[in-house]
Amino acid sequence: INYTGAEANVAVSLSVMGEKTDFVTKMPDSDISACAIKMLKSYGVGIDNIVTGGDRLGLYYLERGASQRASKIIYDRKYSAISMARRDEFDWKKIFKDAGVFHFTGITAGLGGEMAEICIDACREAKKAGLLVTCDLNYRRALWSKDEARQVMGNLMPYVDVLICNEEDAACVFGMSADGSDIIAGKLNDQGYSELARKIKDVYGVPAVAFTLRTSISASDNDWAGMLFINDQSYFSRKYRIHLVDRVGGGDSFSAAVIYVLNNRFEPQKAIEFAVAASCLKQTIEMDFNLATVEEIERLMEGDGSGRVVR
Amino acid sequence: INYTGAEANVAVSLSVMGEKTDFVTKMPDSDISACAIKMLKSYGVGIDNIVTGGDRLGLYYLERGASQRASKIIYDRKYSAISMARRDEFDWKKIFKDAGVFHFTGITAGLGGEMAEICIDACREAKKAGLLVTCDLNYRRALWSKDEARQVMGNLMPYVDVLICNEEDAACVFGMSADGSDIIAGKLNDQGYSELARKIKDVYGVPAVAFTLRTSISASDNDWAGMLFINDQSYFSRKYRIHLVDRVGGGDSFSAAVIYVLNNRFEPQKAIEFAVAASCLKQTIEMDFNLATVEEIERLMEGDGSGRVVR
Amino acid sequence: INYTGAEANVAVSLSVMGEKTDFVTKMPDSDISACAIKMLKSYGVGIDNIVTGGDRLGLYYLERGASQRASKIIYDRKYSAISMARRDEFDWKKIFKDAGVFHFTGITAGLGGEMAEICIDACREAKKAGLLVTCDLNYRRALWSKDEARQVMGNLMPYVDVLICNEEDAACVFGMSADGSDIIAGKLNDQGYSELARKIKDVYGVPAVAFTLRTSISASDNDWAGMLFINDQSYFSRKYRIHLVDRVGGGDSFSAAVIYVLNNRFEPQKAIEFAVAASCLKQTIEMDFNLATVEEIERLMEGDGSGRVVR
Amino acid sequence: INYTGAEANVAVSLSVMGEKTDFVTKMPDSDISACAIKMLKSYGVGIDNIVTGGDRLGLYYLERGASQRASKIIYDRKYSAISMARRDEFDWKKIFKDAGVFHFTGITAGLGGEMAEICIDACREAKKAGLLVTCDLNYRRALWSKDEARQVMGNLMPYVDVLICNEEDAACVFGMSADGSDIIAGKLNDQGYSELARKIKDVYGVPAVAFTLRTSISASDNDWAGMLFINDQSYFSRKYRIHLVDRVGGGDSFSAAVIYVLNNRFEPQKAIEFAVAASCLKQTIEMDFNLATVEEIERLMEGDGSGRVVR
Amino acid sequence: INYTGAEANVAVSLSVMGEKTDFVTKMPDSDISACAIKMLKSYGVGIDNIVTGGDRLGLYYLERGASQRASKIIYDRKYSAISMARRDEFDWKKIFKDAGVFHFTGITAGLGGEMAEICIDACREAKKAGLLVTCDLNYRRALWSKDEARQVMGNLMPYVDVLICNEEDAACVFGMSADGSDIIAGKLNDQGYSELARKIKDVYGVPAVAFTLRTSISASDNDWAGMLFINDQSYFSRKYRIHLVDRVGGGDSFSAAVIYVLNNRFEPQKAIEFAVAASCLKQTIEMDFNLATVEEIERLMEGDGSGRVVR
Amino acid sequence: INYTGAEANVAVSLSVMGEKTDFVTKMPDSDISACAIKMLKSYGVGIDNIVTGGDRLGLYYLERGASQRASKIIYDRKYSAISMARRDEFDWKKIFKDAGVFHFTGITAGLGGEMAEICIDACREAKKAGLLVTCDLNYRRALWSKDEARQVMGNLMPYVDVLICNEEDAACVFGMSADGSDIIAGKLNDQGYSELARKIKDVYGVPAVAFTLRTSISASDNDWAGMLFINDQSYFSRKYRIHLVDRVGGGDSFSAAVIYVLNNRFEPQKAIEFAVAASCLKQTIEMDFNLATVEEIERLMEGDGSGRVVR
Repeated sequence: INYTGAEANVAVSLSVMGEKTDFVTKMPDSDISACAIKMLKSYGVGIDNIVTGGDRLGLYYLERGASQRASKIIYDRKYSAISMARRDEFDWKKIFKDAGVFHFTGITAGLGGEMAEICIDACREAKKAGLLVTCDLNYRRALWSKDEARQVMGNLMPYVDVLICNEEDAACVFGMSADGSDIIAGKLNDQGYSELARKIKDVYGVPAVAFTLRTSISASDNDWAGMLFINDQSYFSRKYRIHLVDRVGGGDSFSAAVIYVLNNRFEPQKAIEFAVAASCLKQTIEMDFNLATVEEIERLMEGDGSGRVVR
Repeated sequence: INYTGAEANVAVSLSVMGEKTDFVTKMPDSDISACAIKMLKSYGVGIDNIVTGGDRLGLYYLERGASQRASKIIYDRKYSAISMARRDEFDWKKIFKDAGVFHFTGITAGLGGEMAEICIDACREAKKAGLLVTCDLNYRRALWSKDEARQVMGNLMPYVDVLICNEEDAACVFGMSADGSDIIAGKLNDQGYSELARKIKDVYGVPAVAFTLRTSISASDNDWAGMLFINDQSYFSRKYRIHLVDRVGGGDSFSAAVIYVLNNRFEPQKAIEFAVAASCLKQTIEMDFNLATVEEIERLMEGDGSGRVVR
Repeated sequence: INYTGAEANVAVSLSVMGEKTDFVTKMPDSDISACAIKMLKSYGVGIDNIVTGGDRLGLYYLERGASQRASKIIYDRKYSAISMARRDEFDWKKIFKDAGVFHFTGITAGLGGEMAEICIDACREAKKAGLLVTCDLNYRRALWSKDEARQVMGNLMPYVDVLICNEEDAACVFGMSADGSDIIAGKLNDQGYSELARKIKDVYGVPAVAFTLRTSISASDNDWAGMLFINDQSYFSRKYRIHLVDRVGGGDSFSAAVIYVLNNRFEPQKAIEFAVAASCLKQTIEMDFNLATVEEIERLMEGDGSGRVVR
Repeated sequence: INYTGAEANVAVSLSVMGEKTDFVTKMPDSDISACAIKMLKSYGVGIDNIVTGGDRLGLYYLERGASQRASKIIYDRKYSAISMARRDEFDWKKIFKDAGVFHFTGITAGLGGEMAEICIDACREAKKAGLLVTCDLNYRRALWSKDEARQVMGNLMPYVDVLICNEEDAACVFGMSADGSDIIAGKLNDQGYSELARKIKDVYGVPAVAFTLRTSISASDNDWAGMLFINDQSYFSRKYRIHLVDRVGGGDSFSAAVIYVLNNRFEPQKAIEFAVAASCLKQTIEMDFNLATVEEIERLMEGDGSGRVVR
Repeated sequence: INYTGAEANVAVSLSVMGEKTDFVTKMPDSDISACAIKMLKSYGVGIDNIVTGGDRLGLYYLERGASQRASKIIYDRKYSAISMARRDEFDWKKIFKDAGVFHFTGITAGLGGEMAEICIDACREAKKAGLLVTCDLNYRRALWSKDEARQVMGNLMPYVDVLICNEEDAACVFGMSADGSDIIAGKLNDQGYSELARKIKDVYGVPAVAFTLRTSISASDNDWAGMLFINDQSYFSRKYRIHLVDRVGGGDSFSAAVIYVLNNRFEPQKAIEFAVAASCLKQTIEMDFNLATVEEIERLMEGDGSGRVVR
Repeated sequence: INYTGAEANVAVSLSVMGEKTDFVTKMPDSDISACAIKMLKSYGVGIDNIVTGGDRLGLYYLERGASQRASKIIYDRKYSAISMARRDEFDWKKIFKDAGVFHFTGITAGLGGEMAEICIDACREAKKAGLLVTCDLNYRRALWSKDEARQVMGNLMPYVDVLICNEEDAACVFGMSADGSDIIAGKLNDQGYSELARKIKDVYGVPAVAFTLRTSISASDNDWAGMLFINDQSYFSRKYRIHLVDRVGGGDSFSAAVIYVLNNRFEPQKAIEFAVAASCLKQTIEMDFNLATVEEIERLMEGDGSGRVVR
């Protein structure tokens, strides 16, 4: 049983990498929220912009899979404080003061109530304040239909500077796919991904797109790579065969690393290598948070994936 | 430390798949038996035909292996209530009222005392009552010699409609083997298995035989498949490479699935695919019971073994 | 958090294999030492030659790695009783009475203070008493520089009958490497290892050398083999692909098995097969100690690495 | 984190005592509900009248207190399936077929929505079907105000044959108190409780009232007794000083035992002794369920509270 | 689940106190026995006189009680190797070489088969070899009837130098009780115990008797004291009110301490104070073994039972 | 195994009560320190003034006592970074900027090396900066002799505004005791404590003294009270009988509460009641930190120590 969410995972990851972060959400005034906040504080995530109110904190139950048995997540997020939040509860001008990047995910936009509008408010204000806007497409069929997602996310895209997604999300939300790829069969087509990124740019005006490229050998073993499309060019990372410890939070750690490399102005090739190495390490760590430091990520990037004991 | 047995595993598996089951055994009147019965009830297994009496419940100790280290089972089943049961304690006519299938294993027949005769009694009465009789050959060298097993199991075969076994059991009990196979070296020969099934049918008159086909890559990774010989034809399933979580109970879950597909009149090819998928999932689950539902088994059969998170 | 050390691991391994062992060290007079001694006693390791005194027992913290995430060991061994021991605290003549083999590692020699001299004292006395001297090179960069290690270990080599090491240790301490091997890339060159052993013999006069040959597929999966150079000939073992449970203590279990085969006069080929099988099994067992018995090691050597359940 | 409720606790307790029970509620169609149902089945509680539907199962978080630190329960029950159930979802005529007793608590009546009316429906139908109706007053300030509780519970009292409550509940809901008692100071006045029961009978027409009488020495140690008012007479039990293991569920186990003694026609004095002994034992058992058997309860009643080991 | 027994507990206790001990029993040749032996070795108990053979090691299941809920022990000791041992398997002459004390309990004598005769053999040989014989009466109703116990134990008493028992054992086995005591009501009568000891001496010729005097406040809190009758005089210890952690093994630790004080020639008053303090500490320690050292026992005896933290 | 210290406990307690705190110490640059810092951050304790350097973090091992068995702490703090810190590593002027209270303990002053002088430096600078200085006398015999403690602490007293101690500390360090008290026998004499406080004031010039008054019923149950001597008057609190969960950290939570009441200008009687209630609650909570909030402390103070469940 856990209560973290995609954006919290990103914030913690970034804090561990040494970046200053602030987590914006709404939580009820309860001891359970206090636990969640204590955890965020322990990682140094700012919590001053969390709105207090509402009835409950969303939860989920995770049954970890293995081999042919897939992991299973059961959500108990209905009626959560954030899903019932109102537009006037967030003072974005104040929140974005001194900020550099605004990150949000399609999960938040899809929670219903006023959340889609709240995301638009935030994006509009972020652009006004000169922030870089990053978005993880993150489609969840339990939240909304593909049509609903397409409409809401379509309206948000004009504000997004860097879109993060995988092939499945893009297919569900935008109805676009990478020709020649078949994730279940484990076949990925590089050319197809380049074209997919270009299509997203052409249709939605998103200048940069970062893809995670996962091929499942089994629920225990996955291949993991990434692609960054930027300045009209595609950069593919090396591929890792991961013996999974916990894949939940893998995408979020990728988002965090993408924000890190943008903030630290990495070259595109090094940027995608870093983001993939970071999220590879996350998947060898239990629970949702990526506890890998920049030093550990760079050690993996630079080739020592041999797993020799570090003494 | 655990007290389940092969037939209990089959009964629980079938209950989880939605079938009505009833577990027949003998247990002492003790709090330990009460625990075992509570567990059976929680899965909906019928317990009204369990005979009360005797001194102790059989136990076993399991040390789970990994990689090159094999799992190890130490039995403490001597003097168990069931092994000292008497023929007149089971009223098979009453037990089989309204039943459709009777399943037993070679372990039970090999417990000594009157157990071999009790198995004959049950089989004879089951056939009279028009039940389908299924038997898992399950040879255990700690219980009896190959010769003893051959004699007792040979006497039971005439009543058996569907025999479930692996190559090793067949070799030990019947002295027959699949030509060209070498389990330890990981080589299986399809043709050999077809002939082996036919030979069993010819010699013992068993109309249908279901084989589990395991090849060990290591104690951590196994290939897993199956073959169903029925109506003089052999049907081979697809093969799964399983990263094992717990292989104990794998054969029992296969038996349960075979009974399920017989009861639900699956086509032979679909039948063996289902049985192999079911028992593949069992081996990704801790402890002896297969908790996989029909829906989950069918999802695996239909190809989504990618282990994507189910949300 | 743990307090075992390389030599303790070797002693426990040898005791489990049925050899009489005695562990020499210095420990403070504390309840923590009492725990450590109780553990040694439970395995039958002799503890009568442990010197009491000093302030603390060395500790280390282990974070177990997985897949691309390397294991991490943080030492808290500074100011430990053994590292501050004095030469006059060990009466080697008395200690070696009735002994057959003296084993030590480069870790002990590198602890600083008088430890290098204590090792020389012990070696000199061991040779006088007619013992076989075995040494695991075991270079730890946290303890000393390559230059310091070369000087101290170089002075100890003349006493050593069998040197145990891996390619990395040899490179760091002796500045010699096996041509054509690249551990991180997983490439080993048999010819190179033979030459490396010969070079060690020529330069340092060590008559026999045993190499562990590890190639890392990932932090979860390693290939594991060994080579024994003796009487001017090289013997290579078969190679195991290990799905690692705990690699810490793998080298120590190899040392223990080398001592076992020397003591029991195995033929060279059988000797290296035994040592590699023993240390393969260790790496499938949690914690530092190899709990595998001679019977289990021989079962693996003789080919049954299939991981079938032992009942 | 737990999901049981007062009525489920009563049903499980009664099942453990050997009574046939059936639990009526509404639960969503989810794996979490499946867990809850499996648990009920393991104790033999009937689950055929559970309505499926709604969004979530209510939860609560318990922090167990000790000594001066009180236990703390945080509810996350808002929007639970049962609290949003509709009157037409329960077919009381069918539910009460063959039943002998209907038990409900003030918690259920106070969940809001249509629950108060559903309780009235059930009570009316129960009386028509000739059932005995028992009610645990169980006031929870987090659910409703005293005024709301008084109105709803007042309307339900005419149907109630046996009311179960403590002094605090009676004060909150009916505004009546036992003169001369001061729970916090640990003073109870027998005469006051007799008069309080009589007052409840006079005002609300409830023929029988069972009180639990708890005096807190600390959060770790409580005195526990009970009183049964029936046929215009008061019967007080002996008092137990309990070193608490888990007091949650104590009241529910008392209710279960009251139903048991009514069903088995105990004499009033023996009846209240049994109910108090049963609920005393519950408070020495972890978690909400009373696992004490009738035999264990009677052994305590008959004086052997010495805690000698039962071998 | 545990496999220790009364005599093993005594041996471990004595070893912890620094005495040389040796444990005589019969165990099957199994990994479970190996675990038990490893545990004995870790405490320094001699294991060279353990006979190997038989089918199983006896087990018991313990449910720890609390407050009014008594602890519950379920034995699974039938058909254990020791209970089926034969007289000719123990070479008492060899076993008692260099020994000073022989200790046994009524449990062992009551296991059936040849065990009563084996106890006689041992006692006779012990006396011949000049050993002190101590016996813990330890009546278990699950093993034998009072009449059987009286006959067997009566035959053993002539060999016993010091008998250890409690009032309940004496009543069950000898049919003698301490006038004026009522254990369940928590009343003990000193005068009665003196007379009881004298009666045992007169009837059975046992020169010294040590009583444990337990009065149960509840399953959580007991008063604990002792009495030593020696040289025709009675010595009573101070009384401890113990908040029980685990009372199983309390009697055995008392026996061990009695043997210790005899061996170390304590004055009678100091002797009984030591034995009671030792067994008081045992009951504050989890599991069957008394891990308290002589120093810790003496610190308690000398009055510092305040529980101030020892730093 | 734990690494917290007295001052860290005080800082966490104060943070939980809502005060702004900052923890000053020296820690090595290691992952273990990082863990400790993460924990401090999770409670909101400021960590910007922690000096990095040295070899190791001090540790201690705690064995929790029960009933007559005292808790036992084994320190492994020798050679810790803080004990080897140098005077010039702490810039007290900067540290005390904007601070209101400086708190330290006798443990810190007694660590040896330059720590006594560092304490003097800090005190002198604190007074210059106008801070209130509080000191917990906290004598540890493992650190220094009574004479050494008297000299060092005597030199520090002139700077101390409020001294916190118990009778035993005062006796060890100052050689002064409260006449007529006998802690071990559980007798405290109010008059004696008033005089003791006055004597401390007269001799050392400390204007205010806060005493914790513990009387041990057993290691499981203690009476707990306090006395505040201020403005030449003594204020005694009510007394709590605590069923201990964990007494380690009790004194530190008392210090924290004393600082809290000083900072929030409570009346003397309310101040001592608050400090005693706070530290009473600590002792019902596992581990060193007092997690009780001001609201919970006040609820206990105001009399509701009944342990009714808070819902």
